[in-house]
Amino acid sequence: MLTLYYTPGTCALASHICLEEAGAEYEARRVDFAKQEQRQPAYLAINPKGRVPALVTPSGVLTETPALLVYIAQSFPQARLAPLADPFALARVQELNSFLCSTLHVAHAHRMRGHRWADDPDAIAEMKRKVPETVAAGFDYIERHAFVGPYVMGETYTIADPYLFTLARWMEGDEVDPARFPKVAAHREMMGERPAVRRALAMQLANG
Amino acid sequence: MLTLYYTPGTCALASHICLEEAGAEYEARRVDFAKQEQRQPAYLAINPKGRVPALVTPSGVLTETPALLVYIAQSFPQARLAPLADPFALARVQELNSFLCSTLHVAHAHRMRGHRWADDPDAIAEMKRKVPETVAAGFDYIERHAFVGPYVMGETYTIADPYLFTLARWMEGDEVDPARFPKVAAHREMMGERPAVRRALAMQLANG
Repeated sequence: MLTLYYTPGTCALASHICLEEAGAEYEARRVDFAKQEQRQPAYLAINPKGRVPALVTPSGVLTETPALLVYIAQSFPQARLAPLADPFALARVQELNSFLCSTLHVAHAHRMRGHRWADDPDAIAEMKRKVPETVAAGFDYIERHAFVGPYVMGETYTIADPYLFTLARWMEGDEVDPARFPKVAAHREMMGERPAVRRALAMQLANG
Repeated sequence: MLTLYYTPGTCALASHICLEEAGAEYEARRVDFAKQEQRQPAYLAINPKGRVPALVTPSGVLTETPALLVYIAQSFPQARLAPLADPFALARVQELNSFLCSTLHVAHAHRMRGHRWADDPDAIAEMKRKVPETVAAGFDYIERHAFVGPYVMGETYTIADPYLFTLARWMEGDEVDPARFPKVAAHREMMGERPAVRRALAMQLANG
């Protein structure tokens, strides 16, 4: 049994979708950021980083989306969510997931989480101003260099798909026009139709 | 045959060390940041991101340190650089590597690469001012929650070790006192004695 700690609107959605794709038995527990639950001792005992996602497994707690995604793929091999036996193909998946976590998600975070890297309100406002440019640059890289199609890696669905889908849902909020990135936009639409994606989104909506 | 593109002082050192640990046949080619080689067409044709590391493999080019590290571990299984068959143990390695690339390296990057997230010089200076605090917070997390010892993951050396070592070498430059993090500091010292680490560092020094 697995327990996923998530907050709606965060990158935890990627792992949530993968658990659905894998047909995993799991429980999804919402962490209420509005109540600052992520900073309270009960949650910090699970994830001392005070962030989501966290996945409680029989062996211990895991954090960081790229780690959760590979864990889910490897724990449910019958779901074929990653090319686990092919070093180059797996590295390609990890390459995109690393880019998503360290570049694109970080660019996005400068909009609402500028306080992580500066204290001065003017500096935080300046970071926020640049977000549409930096987030667009990230999607531009994916559109031109990383996206194969119809899935990110080509003909086969992988754990990189729900991760890209999750971050692509933030485009409008970051004032980035999806029409500039037709492959990523079409992928987002296709992904939104997948039953596993609909189930994960519905579950997050139902839990508030 | 593999070709690693690196620049001294960057996170490319982690992959370089792993190639040495693996006993891989490879060539190391320096990208001269002082001459802006990373932004010139010849290099952008290899890595359109204009960054290092990039690893040219027989199947294609790979980028992003966490991807290169797993690729090297999986391509040279006899070197036992990662617990590839254990989903939880491998996820723990990926968890640390994700934290290093998306949190600790990003915190460090706000010192010299603030222009990625802001244009205003005052905002860039303000980001730089906060770097000692944010980088220290990253090492504090590792010291208290992630480090098992004597290697990061415990008794066994993994690809997370050279990556942590590489970022730990930046502490003084970021005005972080290693004495605050005795486990990380002892690990850095131990890692510095490994023959593979010495060979990689010597090679980078010899190439200028």
